[in-house]
Amino acid sequence: MKYIIAAITLAFANTSLAQKVDYDKKVEELGIQLIAPTKPIANYVKAVRTGNLLFLSGHGPSKADGTSITGKVGAEMTIEEGYAAAKQAGISLLSTMKAELGSLNKVKRVVKVLGMVNCTPEFGDQPKVINGCSDLMVAVFGDKGKHARSAVGMNALPNNITVEIEIIVEVE
Amino acid sequence: MKYIIAAITLAFANTSLAQKVDYDKKVEELGIQLIAPTKPIANYVKAVRTGNLLFLSGHGPSKADGTSITGKVGAEMTIEEGYAAAKQAGISLLSTMKAELGSLNKVKRVVKVLGMVNCTPEFGDQPKVINGCSDLMVAVFGDKGKHARSAVGMNALPNNITVEIEIIVEVE
Amino acid sequence: MKYIIAAITLAFANTSLAQKVDYDKKVEELGIQLIAPTKPIANYVKAVRTGNLLFLSGHGPSKADGTSITGKVGAEMTIEEGYAAAKQAGISLLSTMKAELGSLNKVKRVVKVLGMVNCTPEFGDQPKVINGCSDLMVAVFGDKGKHARSAVGMNALPNNITVEIEIIVEVE
Repeated sequence: MKYIIAAITLAFANTSLAQKVDYDKKVEELGIQLIAPTKPIANYVKAVRTGNLLFLSGHGPSKADGTSITGKVGAEMTIEEGYAAAKQAGISLLSTMKAELGSLNKVKRVVKVLGMVNCTPEFGDQPKVINGCSDLMVAVFGDKGKHARSAVGMNALPNNITVEIEIIVEVE
Repeated sequence: MKYIIAAITLAFANTSLAQKVDYDKKVEELGIQLIAPTKPIANYVKAVRTGNLLFLSGHGPSKADGTSITGKVGAEMTIEEGYAAAKQAGISLLSTMKAELGSLNKVKRVVKVLGMVNCTPEFGDQPKVINGCSDLMVAVFGDKGKHARSAVGMNALPNNITVEIEIIVEVE
Repeated sequence: MKYIIAAITLAFANTSLAQKVDYDKKVEELGIQLIAPTKPIANYVKAVRTGNLLFLSGHGPSKADGTSITGKVGAEMTIEEGYAAAKQAGISLLSTMKAELGSLNKVKRVVKVLGMVNCTPEFGDQPKVINGCSDLMVAVFGDKGKHARSAVGMNALPNNITVEIEIIVEVE
């Protein structure tokens, strides 16, 4: 009986392995260029793992050249530019995940996104901005990239970056 | 010995079951009308479970008719109106919990509430606003509804909703 | 074989115990005066434990005399005054941890800090402000005090407090 269960389990495991998407390859296929994670310059770290949850720090829209996308949405930035900034913050988050875990294949599920948009008090399209990050997560991880989310407006972010996004992922 | 321990455990389990409040019934008794959870229109979901934690997305004060309570507290909204909006967001959160879990009786504990209030820069009564949600959680779940909480001010929220509240619950 | 592994495990355990810093003593050595945790005046609590995670409520810069540090950074408060406020919020958080756990030695790791700074829309040095809390955590817990972090700007906080900081810690 034990052996039958073991055999069935193995069969399912093999099936799911066979169907499993290689997330590292997927990132390449999507033409996403991960960036070398910068070291935080203060007494904190980019991510902390506890149990099988990885808590990532708030990430801004850092680019490979070391600069960041800045400006307030509703003032000097459009929704589309905000979306691009949120996508870039997502790329920065993926870069940290890969650096921490060795491979994005260790990600089991994107659990929670807190998307903070630097915007004017009249702006009300924070969800359309944060979609830039959410769409990226689903492009890479498929259904496992779908997450619980808050998308909200901030009056100010560090060095006037356009978005800051923190994320919790379940890992193997 | 083993049997004695098992018997005692069973006895305690029965006692606690006997005393357990039916949260679904409690919601009815309180005259709270849950709303049909709407589907998110983007690449995210209303809630994600990981282990025995359920992370809920930020919920606004959505009403059964599909509209939401809007306006900034300190400007066109009073504290009392903010409190009512936070209660409505709480009803929306309960509705999602029930939809996700099948029954509110699967809730073991409300762990954490992040209550975000759309308000003017001079407003300082965010706790009194978010009490609308906190009081609801305790009305439904009793001591198990008491949670760690932050109640803070935002310069802008999606579509000018009055509050956005996210929540973490421990589930069976 | 089993005994050899047990012996090795024990040896390592002893080593790590021998090297372990007494965090309660460390707080005293640093001249930090913990404050008597005040009871929340609403339907929430200062901290909730679930599994081996302790979620702490947002804490302001409460002082031993019952008053709090107030004022917006970028307006009537400087970065240095903001840093001092964040340190005071950190002391308040440590006070709650000790009250909840009995001893700070039960803290295994500071996991996540959400540092919210009450500031003007033009202010961009939130990280320098929240360092007041982060530096304190590392002063007390060493490498185990290093955490994932977001440091962001808020347009308003309760009673105009200068910072509100919430924290997740892994506990024994």
